[in-house]
Amino acid sequence: MTASTKTPMELYQSLNEVGEKIRTLKTANAEKAEIEAALQLLLKLKVDYKGATGQDYQAGSPPAENMDESGNRSIADGADDDTVDPWNVSTTSAKGVDYDKLIVRFGSSKIDKELVDRIEKVLGQKPHRFLRRGIFFSHRDMHQVLDAYEKQKAFYLYTGRGPSSEAMHMGHLIPFIFTKWLQDVFDIPLVIQMTDDEKYLWKDLTLEQCHHYAVENAKDIIACGFDINKTFIFSDLDYMGSSPEFYRNVVKIQKHVTFNQVKGIFGFTESDCIGKISFPAIQAAPSFSNSFPQIFGGKQDVQCLIPCAIDQDPYFRMTRDVAPRIGYPKPALLHSTFFPALQGAQTKMSASDANSSIFLTDTPKQIKNKVNKHAFSGGKDTVEEHRQHGGDPDVDVSFMYLTFFLEDDEQLEKIKQDYRSGALLTGELKKILIDTLQPMISEHQERRTQVTDEMVQQFMTPRPLNFRY
Amino acid sequence: MTASTKTPMELYQSLNEVGEKIRTLKTANAEKAEIEAALQLLLKLKVDYKGATGQDYQAGSPPAENMDESGNRSIADGADDDTVDPWNVSTTSAKGVDYDKLIVRFGSSKIDKELVDRIEKVLGQKPHRFLRRGIFFSHRDMHQVLDAYEKQKAFYLYTGRGPSSEAMHMGHLIPFIFTKWLQDVFDIPLVIQMTDDEKYLWKDLTLEQCHHYAVENAKDIIACGFDINKTFIFSDLDYMGSSPEFYRNVVKIQKHVTFNQVKGIFGFTESDCIGKISFPAIQAAPSFSNSFPQIFGGKQDVQCLIPCAIDQDPYFRMTRDVAPRIGYPKPALLHSTFFPALQGAQTKMSASDANSSIFLTDTPKQIKNKVNKHAFSGGKDTVEEHRQHGGDPDVDVSFMYLTFFLEDDEQLEKIKQDYRSGALLTGELKKILIDTLQPMISEHQERRTQVTDEMVQQFMTPRPLNFRY
Repeated sequence: MTASTKTPMELYQSLNEVGEKIRTLKTANAEKAEIEAALQLLLKLKVDYKGATGQDYQAGSPPAENMDESGNRSIADGADDDTVDPWNVSTTSAKGVDYDKLIVRFGSSKIDKELVDRIEKVLGQKPHRFLRRGIFFSHRDMHQVLDAYEKQKAFYLYTGRGPSSEAMHMGHLIPFIFTKWLQDVFDIPLVIQMTDDEKYLWKDLTLEQCHHYAVENAKDIIACGFDINKTFIFSDLDYMGSSPEFYRNVVKIQKHVTFNQVKGIFGFTESDCIGKISFPAIQAAPSFSNSFPQIFGGKQDVQCLIPCAIDQDPYFRMTRDVAPRIGYPKPALLHSTFFPALQGAQTKMSASDANSSIFLTDTPKQIKNKVNKHAFSGGKDTVEEHRQHGGDPDVDVSFMYLTFFLEDDEQLEKIKQDYRSGALLTGELKKILIDTLQPMISEHQERRTQVTDEMVQQFMTPRPLNFRY
Repeated sequence: MTASTKTPMELYQSLNEVGEKIRTLKTANAEKAEIEAALQLLLKLKVDYKGATGQDYQAGSPPAENMDESGNRSIADGADDDTVDPWNVSTTSAKGVDYDKLIVRFGSSKIDKELVDRIEKVLGQKPHRFLRRGIFFSHRDMHQVLDAYEKQKAFYLYTGRGPSSEAMHMGHLIPFIFTKWLQDVFDIPLVIQMTDDEKYLWKDLTLEQCHHYAVENAKDIIACGFDINKTFIFSDLDYMGSSPEFYRNVVKIQKHVTFNQVKGIFGFTESDCIGKISFPAIQAAPSFSNSFPQIFGGKQDVQCLIPCAIDQDPYFRMTRDVAPRIGYPKPALLHSTFFPALQGAQTKMSASDANSSIFLTDTPKQIKNKVNKHAFSGGKDTVEEHRQHGGDPDVDVSFMYLTFFLEDDEQLEKIKQDYRSGALLTGELKKILIDTLQPMISEHQERRTQVTDEMVQQFMTPRPLNFRY
């Protein structure tokens, strides 16, 4: 790749690397000619960078990638090693995906201290640990949502799940745990889309299987504690066929998105079936309140807020691009990081690899075995070494899981310090995690057994919801 | 274009042309060198033809074009001058599209005397004039439908309309007039799809406009006399949102058709919106009986017969290709020719050109004026010439219209002979047509005023229908 075809972000990264290399060469008293060559390259890159961005390169100030929101480049073709799209998440770093870089690449905004403080002020209560700890780390238009909320203007929550099997794991719960908290503290309605049609299109499954998984997964979602008076869960296969208003919005969106656009955003090819190609409109449609006349009485301007994992953002970049062109407000978003696999943060938990995940159906014994056997450790090889040098919590999966589930900030901070110092051994850290997970999963299982078929049916029936304003 | 890239059909046509040319040259005692050159070309084409088809060229025996039913070539890119696809119909011949050629190109079967006789025998009554006169000229699997019918196996009818305006013209009635006859004589249920979603995707219209046109057009369709106990008329925008079974079939079809396929069949490009790209599945879905559980109680093997104009065939070639792969029977088809514009058979009647069409809302005076002013005449310039040489009924639009609407075969034949002989003048022929159309349209208008909103609503409500077997 020649410099002139690089994007500003790629040039920025090359400049960082060359700068780093020069520092290393100087420290190592390298040959003058070698340093000279690196300096020449640095100069050339600086010229290219200015040409591409109109601005001088400054270490620590990455360029703004002002691509249009429809995202006319593949989100998976970044020059860095992180792959993040609705179907793949992977990185070469043991610390996981570089989320700051992702914010720049996706053009979203960081959930910074100012926003977390503002949420605390608006609510008059401590924000959820997922906000305090940067697990929900990125947003679009959240300040706008809060502005309106302060003026007593309603909004609603929309999240979803692709039901590809009965087996849900802990990672799947992250958006639902957070969404339940948002529903409680803001006292607002929530719609949850089960994309059983998507799973039928992408997987080797029958319609009946996908629909069955949708209903089974709904039980696990209900077990998170959602308010039956404020929550509508729907299977696409059912709801598309019971709401002319929903289909009307799907068609509206489908009229305003071309094959070229979905090709750019999702990487579809000409060999893909037409169902996949048109599906993004179906995930977009619940972002608009008039898709749910039974809830919003035909209002088409109720603001939508979507809590989801960052890999779903491409769908909503497309949605936000279409919204003003069909006369609807853009949905706001809150993005979470991924829940790492037991083997490490290079990839997210996957339901298809039993040993990478802790399932919601695992027994206390299975949980204990999985954590002890498979959870990647940041500790040293021997107790002696560990005591002497300490462990690395930043790559330790057990510690990462605790950041998701241990509520007490001080206890978490103490664990981190003790692990880094060597005072806390890997086995002890794992025990803390096991003691945290076992009751959590057991309680989830207990709540799930209390979810009756009648409750599921009620959650999944289109009906009015309680609505504050 | 070099000979080697020509299709067998193109080579066959070139051979016909060169043969004709040689005969002309010989008759005209042309230069020997000129005849020699033409003979050389003939020889070369014969070699190419044998190479392409493995068979010797024989005048009068066109090559069989055995393309697969998904039609992996653009139907609009034929080397001949006829363009026939769901959006365009045109030809350079005053006699209209060459339908025999179209049968070869589309791979359908001709409705020959044997089939017409068989229908007469099965029904025990005279077949509709559209069958007797080759207006419905092509079919797929009609013998199979009759085989099953003779064994008392049920089938159902499916036809449709794209409601792009309130103004329906006489050409739009052809499939409905014929479908009503089929419904009466076979005593079977009928579903009529109003593709208001398609019109929204293709035209600069709002969803509300398209849906309004669907309901208004339904009134004209009902005025054709359909049996309310055997007919279900549905707007896609409504029915997609009221039948999970219909949407399930749409998704099934969408999973089994790729962008490459719809590109080949319909000529879609990457700049087309994803709604257009996925729409063909929506026109395909009513071909399968379990799209209508209220009518067929979930049966998925009731045979479907689709009467339609030949330009709709691409949709159903695709449908027939998909059907066995999703476990459904292929729909059978009956294809009609086009209803010619007043200006001549080079194109079909178009609702967007008021002077090309006789509308269902035209007054007797408007009908008279349009026929007298605009109907292309096959007569001679002066009465004297006409009396001496006679007219040409094959290109005369007034005569063509009479073949559609004059029931009496003998009277029609007499008109043809008298016109050809010169005994019947153009003005007299036009008067016969005017006298035929005026009461026909008036009676339609009268029946339409009797169609109440309640009747429309009943026709358009999903409900059980009377069903013979």
